[in-house]
Amino acid sequence: MTTPDDSKIPVLIDCDPGHDDAIALMLALGSRRLDVLGVTTVAGNGTGPVTYRNARKVLSVLGANVPVAKGADRPLLRKLVTAPSVHGKSALDGPELPEVPETGAPAEALDLITEVLLGNPDRRVVWIATGPLTNVAIALVARPRIKNALERIVIMGGSTGAGNWTPSAEFNIHVDPEAAKIVFDSGVPLTMIGLDVTHKALVYPDEVERLRAAGRIGKLAAELLDFYSIFYRKRGFRGNPIHDAAAVAHVIDGSLVTTRRARVEVETHGEFTSGRTVTDFSPEGLEAANCDVGLDIDRERFVELLYATIRSMG
Amino acid sequence: MTTPDDSKIPVLIDCDPGHDDAIALMLALGSRRLDVLGVTTVAGNGTGPVTYRNARKVLSVLGANVPVAKGADRPLLRKLVTAPSVHGKSALDGPELPEVPETGAPAEALDLITEVLLGNPDRRVVWIATGPLTNVAIALVARPRIKNALERIVIMGGSTGAGNWTPSAEFNIHVDPEAAKIVFDSGVPLTMIGLDVTHKALVYPDEVERLRAAGRIGKLAAELLDFYSIFYRKRGFRGNPIHDAAAVAHVIDGSLVTTRRARVEVETHGEFTSGRTVTDFSPEGLEAANCDVGLDIDRERFVELLYATIRSMG
Amino acid sequence: MTTPDDSKIPVLIDCDPGHDDAIALMLALGSRRLDVLGVTTVAGNGTGPVTYRNARKVLSVLGANVPVAKGADRPLLRKLVTAPSVHGKSALDGPELPEVPETGAPAEALDLITEVLLGNPDRRVVWIATGPLTNVAIALVARPRIKNALERIVIMGGSTGAGNWTPSAEFNIHVDPEAAKIVFDSGVPLTMIGLDVTHKALVYPDEVERLRAAGRIGKLAAELLDFYSIFYRKRGFRGNPIHDAAAVAHVIDGSLVTTRRARVEVETHGEFTSGRTVTDFSPEGLEAANCDVGLDIDRERFVELLYATIRSMG
Amino acid sequence: MTTPDDSKIPVLIDCDPGHDDAIALMLALGSRRLDVLGVTTVAGNGTGPVTYRNARKVLSVLGANVPVAKGADRPLLRKLVTAPSVHGKSALDGPELPEVPETGAPAEALDLITEVLLGNPDRRVVWIATGPLTNVAIALVARPRIKNALERIVIMGGSTGAGNWTPSAEFNIHVDPEAAKIVFDSGVPLTMIGLDVTHKALVYPDEVERLRAAGRIGKLAAELLDFYSIFYRKRGFRGNPIHDAAAVAHVIDGSLVTTRRARVEVETHGEFTSGRTVTDFSPEGLEAANCDVGLDIDRERFVELLYATIRSMG
Repeated sequence: MTTPDDSKIPVLIDCDPGHDDAIALMLALGSRRLDVLGVTTVAGNGTGPVTYRNARKVLSVLGANVPVAKGADRPLLRKLVTAPSVHGKSALDGPELPEVPETGAPAEALDLITEVLLGNPDRRVVWIATGPLTNVAIALVARPRIKNALERIVIMGGSTGAGNWTPSAEFNIHVDPEAAKIVFDSGVPLTMIGLDVTHKALVYPDEVERLRAAGRIGKLAAELLDFYSIFYRKRGFRGNPIHDAAAVAHVIDGSLVTTRRARVEVETHGEFTSGRTVTDFSPEGLEAANCDVGLDIDRERFVELLYATIRSMG
Repeated sequence: MTTPDDSKIPVLIDCDPGHDDAIALMLALGSRRLDVLGVTTVAGNGTGPVTYRNARKVLSVLGANVPVAKGADRPLLRKLVTAPSVHGKSALDGPELPEVPETGAPAEALDLITEVLLGNPDRRVVWIATGPLTNVAIALVARPRIKNALERIVIMGGSTGAGNWTPSAEFNIHVDPEAAKIVFDSGVPLTMIGLDVTHKALVYPDEVERLRAAGRIGKLAAELLDFYSIFYRKRGFRGNPIHDAAAVAHVIDGSLVTTRRARVEVETHGEFTSGRTVTDFSPEGLEAANCDVGLDIDRERFVELLYATIRSMG
Repeated sequence: MTTPDDSKIPVLIDCDPGHDDAIALMLALGSRRLDVLGVTTVAGNGTGPVTYRNARKVLSVLGANVPVAKGADRPLLRKLVTAPSVHGKSALDGPELPEVPETGAPAEALDLITEVLLGNPDRRVVWIATGPLTNVAIALVARPRIKNALERIVIMGGSTGAGNWTPSAEFNIHVDPEAAKIVFDSGVPLTMIGLDVTHKALVYPDEVERLRAAGRIGKLAAELLDFYSIFYRKRGFRGNPIHDAAAVAHVIDGSLVTTRRARVEVETHGEFTSGRTVTDFSPEGLEAANCDVGLDIDRERFVELLYATIRSMG
Repeated sequence: MTTPDDSKIPVLIDCDPGHDDAIALMLALGSRRLDVLGVTTVAGNGTGPVTYRNARKVLSVLGANVPVAKGADRPLLRKLVTAPSVHGKSALDGPELPEVPETGAPAEALDLITEVLLGNPDRRVVWIATGPLTNVAIALVARPRIKNALERIVIMGGSTGAGNWTPSAEFNIHVDPEAAKIVFDSGVPLTMIGLDVTHKALVYPDEVERLRAAGRIGKLAAELLDFYSIFYRKRGFRGNPIHDAAAVAHVIDGSLVTTRRARVEVETHGEFTSGRTVTDFSPEGLEAANCDVGLDIDRERFVELLYATIRSMG
């Protein structure tokens, strides 16, 4: 674990790399504002073993000295859905990253989460979750004491409007709605960075080229986006929505994303709406609010932060 | 029944007056473009007896010689929800309309619907439904042959975004989601005039005053809006959304409302989403489209149509 | 319509023949205790056209002069499920019955139901429903006035224990749970003749042979059971459960079936329990009772009634 | 932890005392056949703190030297339901048991479960769960490796017929259906000791008196049953169903309970059936079987086992 640094924001990252998770990790580990205390992986964009392997590859390429552990291989109650149409067979198709040799069984996510959250009694941690919320939910129900160690949970997931995986649901919530319900009902302060934000967190083609010229990590980021952009171009996007990086960017610089208090409920029972984040901005919703819901992002400053951070990584 | 007139669009109206239903009836009966063949009432804004009584009062004040019949007193499977917070105790609070004496039991909605739709074999009818879809669903399942007599069904109801009765659902669909599901799955051509349109179908205070000066019916419309505006002002609206009149206006002048083809499914099983109209504009949704979904309205021309029609009624 | 006879019980039959429906029709039409005022058909064991055709064939073979009309081709909200594994391709496989030529479009079930129930103001009618409850539900919501004309509805359907189509649901309720819910919530006195009764309403092989020797209709009944028994033998039954005939027998002779008051709810939302008749015999259930639930049948007297009636038909 | 003894069956007990849990603990700890490696508590019959306190009191009275730890305070996704009508305010009303002083925070259930299951690599453990399955589910999702350390899970819960808390659901499954679903879908060998067994695991009044005369623990058991019997007498039971002890008895002596292989699904979505254990004994169910379902118990031998064991405790 990196040495504590009081000037930095201690964060714990749960992710399922995934191209945008990989770029989110770059942003988090490259940022001087964040102190990344650990990384855990979850099944989502790929299966459990695949996202764990991808996270280790990315961390290795970044030269990051951060503990990593493997979490859930499947949602709490449902069959796993993955996203090969977006991320390819490896869940991180495109540039070939060197394999990182395994030495023994992976550390278990719950142990790393417990260690990070209960082992730093002086500092409240921001938990950034960029995959399905399975690991987060498991930790919250298995170790309710960790709630006191959390500053908040910043979730990449959900939408106040249409979904991206079904007409109603965003992918991360769709994959494990029951886990999401546990997290949204947990009482922990939450920020939802959903599609309202991330579909505006676009990196345009010329900005990809700028990244490509910004050193070794920039080149890697650009190559990841070369693959990632295939899916989104087909869907009519003019740029690449770097969903997960928007969640990290929001933690680095709270002024990038506009948020609004609301009550968010997760639908787990609908025929056509399972995985929907039902958001209530009414006075009654505000009264029972459990979440700061991101609604907009200053795209240009977001891209500038991404560029500057990645370039600084050499 | 009024004499057929080939230059007019034959319409059948199912409604639950309700202030905006009343104004929708003014617009329909005052329009030279429409031939209103019948009016049926359904429980919704008020109970079954109340909306029937209100419809007869409104028709009487308008001097309309149109057959009226009473339909369902409750949704197919659920307990009735009414809207006194919007429409008051009488479901049409505000101006005092003269009672219309009853002579015998009301005609039954299903009989009038059957007579209108099967009794006019030469003309396909546009069915405008401005309340919960209970009567429409019952007629479609009880008399499937009527489908061939329908040009389309124009529904005031639903929303592609937030609801107005729950965070997920618009009132009319919320009250009887199973009926709505029957209608949306019926195979009959549909146009959905939901909140996307009707929350823009606003009549501003100065326009209410203009109506008030536009003859006897205009005065009545203004007085109805005096009461109706109380609810919407409290909710932060700058004008009065005349939901039901927008559906009628769309039939009179197809150029007022912008629509887009989509697949619309009605959620009947959700914990937080029951009554939601799940709208799929994706290529897959377009492939399976069952509905033209209204998305915008030319507000000024809508208000002008309303004003001109009402003024013409004297 | 047959001439009223005050000494007889006026019944209306809704069915989906089906082998056991056919035998139920024999029992009903052969009984001197019943006055069959009409027969309507519904999609269930076969599609709508198929069950209508089968009903007409059976009535013709029986020489019955009873009005017949065609009802719903599909459940209210769901896709139709039929039972070819039990009843074969024609829904009445086995003996070849002569086709009955069509003369014009079929009468509509709702019209016949209305005529029978509202056209006999002096006599309350027992409505026997041996198929999915689609027609019954439609009539109850389309013409609520008919409730006053009903003595009760006797339903072949449901189970207090395991189902026969899913582990939770009996076929008739499984096919259209929403229709069943409408009927069970209608307030009309109900008797449920479910699997608790009908799986005991067995005709054993030797009794089939006795029927075969009991005249023309007996021979037909035996031939129907020759086919019908294939399915049930495979499922480990020692005899043929004549489900639908048990409902008719109960109306003819109330002493055959043991019943108990209970609250019955129809599950329409479950993942594994959709179509289950949830039966509450507790004191709370008794307080809110909506149904007499059949629990047992005097098998020998049931078979004797069947035999005697069929033999009497020549 | 007690010293391993290869001639004994190593068991781990998760419970929510509760009167029948208390007697189950007597039976388990008094049995020479079982090696109780740990006891964890869960919210169910009482809240989390209450059932933890009760378990410690009972273990203290029994003089048991067994590690105990506290688990979940609430179901995974739902509000907690407790059973004061059965177990009284303290969840163990009746005899006054001495308080056991707390020394520091309780051990956490997940840690004890992990230690017991992963710390005994040579012996597969039988996990007996007599409360809602929250702790078991959490451990299975948080530490999937423990599956390999389990001989099986023996669940007191569920019913193939009617429930005892709703017409569809037995209490333990009703309280946390999602946890039950996780356990039933876990792939671990399961035995379900549901109401089919436990409503026959009756201790009659004269047998209570026999217990009362069987030493200090027998007297305690009898006093517990004095309170417990109030509820069941009102419900028309002739004896006291010692639900949880039946599960323990089954582990001690496999010949007491008759079981049958089946597929068991837990309904989590129904309106009237939530918490139902849907049991499929059909050939298809057998093919996909996940459970040995208890159907009957040799009551006299069960009571004899209980008596002999308790008397042996002095």
